[in-house]
Amino acid sequence: MQLGMIGLGRMGGNIVRRLTKAGHHCVVYDRNSAAVTELAGEGAGASSGLADMVAKLEAPRIVWVMLPAGGPTESTIQELSGMLKSGDIIIDGGNTFYKDDIRRGAELKTKGIHYVDVGTSGGVWGLERGYCMMIGGAKEAVDHIDPILAALAPGIGTIERTPGREGHDPRPEQGYIHAGPIGSGHFVKMVHNGIEYGLMQAYAEGFDILKNKNSTDLPENERYDLDMGDIAEVWRRGSVISSWLLDLTAMALIEDGTLSDYPGEVADSGEGRWTVNAAIEEAVPADVLTAALFARFRSRQDHTFGEKLLSAMRFKFGGHTEFKKKD
Amino acid sequence: MQLGMIGLGRMGGNIVRRLTKAGHHCVVYDRNSAAVTELAGEGAGASSGLADMVAKLEAPRIVWVMLPAGGPTESTIQELSGMLKSGDIIIDGGNTFYKDDIRRGAELKTKGIHYVDVGTSGGVWGLERGYCMMIGGAKEAVDHIDPILAALAPGIGTIERTPGREGHDPRPEQGYIHAGPIGSGHFVKMVHNGIEYGLMQAYAEGFDILKNKNSTDLPENERYDLDMGDIAEVWRRGSVISSWLLDLTAMALIEDGTLSDYPGEVADSGEGRWTVNAAIEEAVPADVLTAALFARFRSRQDHTFGEKLLSAMRFKFGGHTEFKKKD
Amino acid sequence: MQLGMIGLGRMGGNIVRRLTKAGHHCVVYDRNSAAVTELAGEGAGASSGLADMVAKLEAPRIVWVMLPAGGPTESTIQELSGMLKSGDIIIDGGNTFYKDDIRRGAELKTKGIHYVDVGTSGGVWGLERGYCMMIGGAKEAVDHIDPILAALAPGIGTIERTPGREGHDPRPEQGYIHAGPIGSGHFVKMVHNGIEYGLMQAYAEGFDILKNKNSTDLPENERYDLDMGDIAEVWRRGSVISSWLLDLTAMALIEDGTLSDYPGEVADSGEGRWTVNAAIEEAVPADVLTAALFARFRSRQDHTFGEKLLSAMRFKFGGHTEFKKKD
Amino acid sequence: MQLGMIGLGRMGGNIVRRLTKAGHHCVVYDRNSAAVTELAGEGAGASSGLADMVAKLEAPRIVWVMLPAGGPTESTIQELSGMLKSGDIIIDGGNTFYKDDIRRGAELKTKGIHYVDVGTSGGVWGLERGYCMMIGGAKEAVDHIDPILAALAPGIGTIERTPGREGHDPRPEQGYIHAGPIGSGHFVKMVHNGIEYGLMQAYAEGFDILKNKNSTDLPENERYDLDMGDIAEVWRRGSVISSWLLDLTAMALIEDGTLSDYPGEVADSGEGRWTVNAAIEEAVPADVLTAALFARFRSRQDHTFGEKLLSAMRFKFGGHTEFKKKD
Repeated sequence: MQLGMIGLGRMGGNIVRRLTKAGHHCVVYDRNSAAVTELAGEGAGASSGLADMVAKLEAPRIVWVMLPAGGPTESTIQELSGMLKSGDIIIDGGNTFYKDDIRRGAELKTKGIHYVDVGTSGGVWGLERGYCMMIGGAKEAVDHIDPILAALAPGIGTIERTPGREGHDPRPEQGYIHAGPIGSGHFVKMVHNGIEYGLMQAYAEGFDILKNKNSTDLPENERYDLDMGDIAEVWRRGSVISSWLLDLTAMALIEDGTLSDYPGEVADSGEGRWTVNAAIEEAVPADVLTAALFARFRSRQDHTFGEKLLSAMRFKFGGHTEFKKKD
Repeated sequence: MQLGMIGLGRMGGNIVRRLTKAGHHCVVYDRNSAAVTELAGEGAGASSGLADMVAKLEAPRIVWVMLPAGGPTESTIQELSGMLKSGDIIIDGGNTFYKDDIRRGAELKTKGIHYVDVGTSGGVWGLERGYCMMIGGAKEAVDHIDPILAALAPGIGTIERTPGREGHDPRPEQGYIHAGPIGSGHFVKMVHNGIEYGLMQAYAEGFDILKNKNSTDLPENERYDLDMGDIAEVWRRGSVISSWLLDLTAMALIEDGTLSDYPGEVADSGEGRWTVNAAIEEAVPADVLTAALFARFRSRQDHTFGEKLLSAMRFKFGGHTEFKKKD
Repeated sequence: MQLGMIGLGRMGGNIVRRLTKAGHHCVVYDRNSAAVTELAGEGAGASSGLADMVAKLEAPRIVWVMLPAGGPTESTIQELSGMLKSGDIIIDGGNTFYKDDIRRGAELKTKGIHYVDVGTSGGVWGLERGYCMMIGGAKEAVDHIDPILAALAPGIGTIERTPGREGHDPRPEQGYIHAGPIGSGHFVKMVHNGIEYGLMQAYAEGFDILKNKNSTDLPENERYDLDMGDIAEVWRRGSVISSWLLDLTAMALIEDGTLSDYPGEVADSGEGRWTVNAAIEEAVPADVLTAALFARFRSRQDHTFGEKLLSAMRFKFGGHTEFKKKD
Repeated sequence: MQLGMIGLGRMGGNIVRRLTKAGHHCVVYDRNSAAVTELAGEGAGASSGLADMVAKLEAPRIVWVMLPAGGPTESTIQELSGMLKSGDIIIDGGNTFYKDDIRRGAELKTKGIHYVDVGTSGGVWGLERGYCMMIGGAKEAVDHIDPILAALAPGIGTIERTPGREGHDPRPEQGYIHAGPIGSGHFVKMVHNGIEYGLMQAYAEGFDILKNKNSTDLPENERYDLDMGDIAEVWRRGSVISSWLLDLTAMALIEDGTLSDYPGEVADSGEGRWTVNAAIEEAVPADVLTAALFARFRSRQDHTFGEKLLSAMRFKFGGHTEFKKKD
């Protein structure tokens, strides 16, 4: 199958590689021409810009946009919408907010252009393991691009089958789902990331409690000398909390159980925030997902204004040995 | 009435002053003899040690221990228990864990000595405003020391009466309660402090959100220039969230709306922790009180081990521009 | 001064009463003509609709809209904007989202009409105590309506002055502030309500811990028989956690310490949610305010889907005596 | 190797089976003689009581106690300690609080009896998958029972090796660790369960947000019809959040996406609580693990007293349509 790919960063580039390997033909474009040249050398067709790409694709054209969410994606899709024809398909594979999908899909529909949103998980491991994909869009369009999705997905692999899946949609077992109409792919991916934050924070807090049990602040008879790497490793083997995130944790901890080279200022992207916003819209209590997000906010600050205010109140009621810095 | 006071720190000293002013006679002792001399100069009787104090009091003796919770209080009460007689009363006015009260009360009971636990709120403002007191112990003992409690309490003052209190125990309106048997005074005081942490954190977070709305990180048209001191002040006047803690907040913010002299490393004492432990024992969800406690824990650290682990996981799944420090 | 009031519910009606008492003249309108008649009987001028009201006001006209946020307020302001002239002032006294204020203010500005947003706290107590007001808008407009604001505000009353306020804007001490440009009044009010949720939840959790210490599920020697009403009362007197919300708590608990007549399904309005959204936009950790919001969400449900999923996982890993309902 | 097993419930019985299959000889006892008979039929040696078991074991004796934590375990170990000799080994495989291990270990040490605490994860899946074990105790004792531990552990199986483990202790890769001195096994297992609660709650909240996106309370154009089972399945395949708990989730959701047969009243055991207590002792912020615990507490109640208090406050400030039940 033929596909245009706009954006050849780590994700876009590897998607092209995986598709090429599977026998699909990709026409590629990136502002950075070196990236285009590199992939052309691996079998992709080069293009010099959006118009050139569109000219090189046969109708109905399929164009996958793999750019940072927000401005870059928005303007590219805007530009493409003036070049594509009725029946063509735009795929947004980035981390777009699902309400933006819905708006865009409605705009493109007036021109007969299909819009498909694809949330992908797998990161740099995707080239090798395949990409887990959550897809929103019209059945007609999602069915049309199925060969591409099937090639990108990890497939059933060595992962055990869930009892009772016989007779159900086979795609989830292959690693991709058609979640529903436009926006639903990114919505499901958004919640996926929200959960990811929660899981990561659960491990983080647990290992923090283990680590501090080694603290020399504790009396000697209440202190252990726990090996972080060994603990992560043993939990990978038959325990209830084994997971891929734990596999990564074990990798990091065997290298250095103190993690002293890691900064501990933890970024967050839109999805974690939007997940909490969605919980609020739906009136769903989401204490864990939210606490995980806030822990990241806090990790990037020295002292919050709120903490200074706590100090100030304590100073004012005066029963505490809280002093102003200048004292 | 006659009372022995052991421990002449800010709290103990001011309690003696307030009692002396009310016509009671205090025999005082502190390891620091200057503190004894100072209060003797204000009308109290000096004593040179526990035995001397006990000798100077008439039976049934009332001895108020106002020392740091834990070791100092424990050993003093231990020593006193060998000197006092059946019918005498020991008052622990410190921040003792209520289960320690229960244990001690049972030990002293074997000698016929009464034990009364008094949780006090009011800090350095208590000399002037009076002390809000929560008291546990046998009815007989608590009734006996009532003149002392009444003198320490703030009284009804200018605070409006709660409709419907007629016919109820008059003491709560005066600012002290007999909460129940031994330990219950400190239990109620413990929860009081747990609530205090929650209230403080609620204000802290709210002002943090206000303050950050002034941030130059925001686009100019989404930014305000809110005056923290004025906002605290206006909320003192007829708003739903007016409180004494807000009064203190307003005091701090009018001096310096940036609070830049306050460190923001916020101590916590046992009560906040024990409150969460009690919630867990009772299976009561206490998300707010606990989050307030954890915010204090976090405020005293640079980066947690947990945060470093988050960085490490992100580095390992590699889709993120998270770098090790040495990179 | 002359003012038109649209919306004569509890808030609007009482604002008119307080203004009338202070010598201002209000022309009033409400869909419910009985409300108009009632206030006309108390000295206000009746009007039969928006056009009639506008005709009865002298330029520059001041129209206060006191309607439910969202649709009703939006359509009324829309309609008014076609009737008013340059220099007139629309006040939105409802619970509008501050970004809606900003949008509306920009639209009205094209016609030269001023828009002032007034967040008010005080509820039904405002008629008697006065309203605490947070105001956003152009200086010119806010200054023009100052006599109205001053009349509505509680004034300094018996509340002690904050040391150091001399030389500062006198309005906050009277109970109203000009927070900044359009939207800032409702922004500050929004955070006020966010804090309110946090404070309420802190008291709620604390009393829950106290109440459950009386539980007959506990062994007899670990159980107390604490009096909720007395505890609330004593904390009003000199304690660090005294507040107006505690005053209300004491009122409720003296009537019935079990609170058995209260449903415990707790509504939330937009402000609490928007406060969390604002925290997320600003990357401010707001664990307590969010937990307070989520506790309300949870209070209105029987069992969440999430809880059922926990049961299902436990059933599947099978080490637990978790059974399906049908078992 | 020879081992005595006391307690033949699901865990104890399956441990015996797995050991028997591996060629070890178990002498078994349970209050329920049917359980003894059943295992005797599968190759174990029966015993009629503790004394009989001890008599049937060769020195140094190894006795594994697999009983409910607390009373039953305590009294059994107490009894055993009178029968065993210096050099014998007691293994506590239950869910004991690690401070109880430390106390017991010290008591047994006076008699020269070794105490080994083994925290196990794996539940009913352990017979087939093997048990993940975290072990505390003296090196000498832990080394002595290594053949038993190795037989119970899952072994390396098909789980990929963590790069860099070469040259490290090989046991963690086999699924068991010697964590440190007495108590450390249960300490690590305790934190394991704390993490488990956090992970489970993260999934629970995420699926709750997904499920409520299908709610007919939402406007039709903001609503999806997401398939819970398909989403769980797709995340098992190459996503960042794949895990064994997600495998179980997929099993439950493919059977019934509404989970309507599950009660949603979620039990908790000591470990989750002790983990939070440990966090508090160490001053480690553990917001996620605690929120997960509190969600379980809340799930088992109708309305909390705290929620009723929120209703009461709202009723009292009266600006809200909150009514008492009787109204």
